Amino acid sequence: MANSSQNISQSRPKNIIVMIGDGMGPAYTSAYRYYKDNPETEEVEQTVFDRLLVGMASTYPATVSGYVTDSAASATALSTGIKSYNGAISVDVEKRPLTTLLEKAKTLGLSTGIAVSSQVNHATPAAFLTHNENRKNYIEIAQSYLDTDADVILGGGQRYFSAELLSQFTAKGYQHITDFSQLDTLSSPKVLGLFADVQLPWVIDTKQAHHLGALTQKSLELLSQNPNGFVLLIEGSLIDWAGHSNDIATAMAEMDGFAHSIEIVEQFVRQQKDTLMIITADHNTGGLSVGANDEYVWKPAVLHKVKASPDVIAAKAIAAQAWQAIVTKQLGFEPNSQEFTLLNNARMQGNEAMAISLRKLIDVYSNTGWTTLGHTGDDVQVFASGPGAKLFSGHQDNTDIANKIFSLLPSSAQ
Amino acid sequence: MANSSQNISQSRPKNIIVMIGDGMGPAYTSAYRYYKDNPETEEVEQTVFDRLLVGMASTYPATVSGYVTDSAASATALSTGIKSYNGAISVDVEKRPLTTLLEKAKTLGLSTGIAVSSQVNHATPAAFLTHNENRKNYIEIAQSYLDTDADVILGGGQRYFSAELLSQFTAKGYQHITDFSQLDTLSSPKVLGLFADVQLPWVIDTKQAHHLGALTQKSLELLSQNPNGFVLLIEGSLIDWAGHSNDIATAMAEMDGFAHSIEIVEQFVRQQKDTLMIITADHNTGGLSVGANDEYVWKPAVLHKVKASPDVIAAKAIAAQAWQAIVTKQLGFEPNSQEFTLLNNARMQGNEAMAISLRKLIDVYSNTGWTTLGHTGDDVQVFASGPGAKLFSGHQDNTDIANKIFSLLPSSAQ
Repeated sequence: MANSSQNISQSRPKNIIVMIGDGMGPAYTSAYRYYKDNPETEEVEQTVFDRLLVGMASTYPATVSGYVTDSAASATALSTGIKSYNGAISVDVEKRPLTTLLEKAKTLGLSTGIAVSSQVNHATPAAFLTHNENRKNYIEIAQSYLDTDADVILGGGQRYFSAELLSQFTAKGYQHITDFSQLDTLSSPKVLGLFADVQLPWVIDTKQAHHLGALTQKSLELLSQNPNGFVLLIEGSLIDWAGHSNDIATAMAEMDGFAHSIEIVEQFVRQQKDTLMIITADHNTGGLSVGANDEYVWKPAVLHKVKASPDVIAAKAIAAQAWQAIVTKQLGFEPNSQEFTLLNNARMQGNEAMAISLRKLIDVYSNTGWTTLGHTGDDVQVFASGPGAKLFSGHQDNTDIANKIFSLLPSSAQ
Repeated sequence: MANSSQNISQSRPKNIIVMIGDGMGPAYTSAYRYYKDNPETEEVEQTVFDRLLVGMASTYPATVSGYVTDSAASATALSTGIKSYNGAISVDVEKRPLTTLLEKAKTLGLSTGIAVSSQVNHATPAAFLTHNENRKNYIEIAQSYLDTDADVILGGGQRYFSAELLSQFTAKGYQHITDFSQLDTLSSPKVLGLFADVQLPWVIDTKQAHHLGALTQKSLELLSQNPNGFVLLIEGSLIDWAGHSNDIATAMAEMDGFAHSIEIVEQFVRQQKDTLMIITADHNTGGLSVGANDEYVWKPAVLHKVKASPDVIAAKAIAAQAWQAIVTKQLGFEPNSQEFTLLNNARMQGNEAMAISLRKLIDVYSNTGWTTLGHTGDDVQVFASGPGAKLFSGHQDNTDIANKIFSLLPSSAQ
């Protein structure tokens, strides 16, 4: 093979790290800046997103699916350079498989990996590793990972991996781990790490533990053992999930977890100098806006006081008699009597209704706006650093991002 | 003076054109792309915004006003490089005047001008030309324009210029015109053109007449007569006004008018090669999203069928007996009986209620989302072309934009 590290030109990266903030439209990075701002100082401090911004990308799927993409079609675009229908996992509109970035990298002798905060077989990582005509075929997708030869598979999703499937992975040489503490025991690939039944815990509920950061750090350590280089996908998956629930407190904590992972990668890129990092979102979720309801204010301080995800607060409130005191303590502010009446009604309907009611209250107190529980067609941002980063400047389509990355793989060397 | 065109280095522009899409947050340019798309082709054509995108900008005002800016504070930032309070017209938080870009250009022997679709003394142009502690002091602001020595002042706002004030302008050598047809008669500055009582007509109601384009063309022709160069502000002011009304059909037509002006400037920049154009928004208005209500669709085709602004449709429907037929014809789609009942109720409340009801119906049929009748704190995009354009790449604050432009003025030449 002609792709040893010696042959890679200076402008061509040895390693490529693609990071996706699922659902992270432009309002999320603006909101995150103000969420992180120290209100005691006149200056608003820049975030890692500000440091790395280079352009934007359109996200529309194949014509058959209109202008608003789902995560499967957009991950297919980012992974293969081809637009497909909503629901497609790296198959085209005729349902034929498309070569993915990680497959191509494998054929060139590079190591590959994914580290995500959703289940590992969720739409985004799936479209980088495998092919399926429907993102919902979770079992098939998990099964198909056996043939990807991926060196690192880290995230959630235990329920999709049967004992038989796990034994097939171990027979192939994979170390199978299920607890974050076991990360320390890993010194070489391959690894299948499944740390939760479905998604990893919310950052807001595990503030001291930056799980995605730990997975990121370990992925870099394991994959960089290949002298030919590697391609790694890291996804802040749950930004999107919080967006789908219109849950601003949880979303901002997930942004913080993702930003922490980006900083780890940024550090790696600074040290290695042969590594390209590209960050984008697959689409915008929730129609978030920084301020709403005709008022020119946004109050991120409210969000810092919220001590747990609305899901967890709701569960605690439903389990307790003196639930008002719990809600007040967990929210960090005291709802008025009218709001308590609404919360009480929701509480009687159960956990989901109570969580929705709490999220809406946090929206009111922080003055946060949403337009949908789904996605929107707004363009997303593109961030990059390292050799080749300039290619991603300005406006581009999401398929252009993939095609630019393909052009940077060693196969394209003269 | 050391700023003749011969002294200007190649990387330093002779002319600088700042274009502001008032309220034009990222969702507006995404929406505009799909609004302009030919649904008969697989390809989604790029817009002028896509061609020119180079970065993004944060818009927050001085700390005293929180994180969500108004047009006055953001125009002050873009014009002076200093953050101030919401409502400030190029004065600092202590209400002391700040040197504006157009003032500085004047002292360097450059020509200056503004061409806008709002009244000429509205917040954005005012902050480039003058100083006032409150944007609402329209009469004072109009009066103060007499001392700006601006070479071109084009837009709306007749009601703010008394006969006495107009005679003061003509005594100073200004030609005063009030009709678009008079633009052809102008062959040299100075000119005060006020073409409407307040704002220029909506583009959606005057589809054949690109008024802002005509003002842009004439401004370029007049200002480029100065061999020292010029600084020109062009504002697509009414994008913001449509956004404040959550009026997507009107907003997209205003985007089209602004895009047309940008294309005229782009052509000028291509031909002259010594001219820098920088386009941005002062803030995001309305919390617009491309798609809403949990559905993954946006239907711009609906907007193309709307034949007039909801204001005009409402007025027609209120004046007529057979109003349902008029509404159906003007909207381009037939509301169902339930929707007609709502419209009927609104019609009885008058023009404003009827217009609101029509806008909401267009939102439903196009699946457009909004979160506020005001502004949001979301970052905006930055577009640029010509010498110095690269300075504006990546993330920056709105004050950085002004400071970069100041650095490109001839005074900074070695």
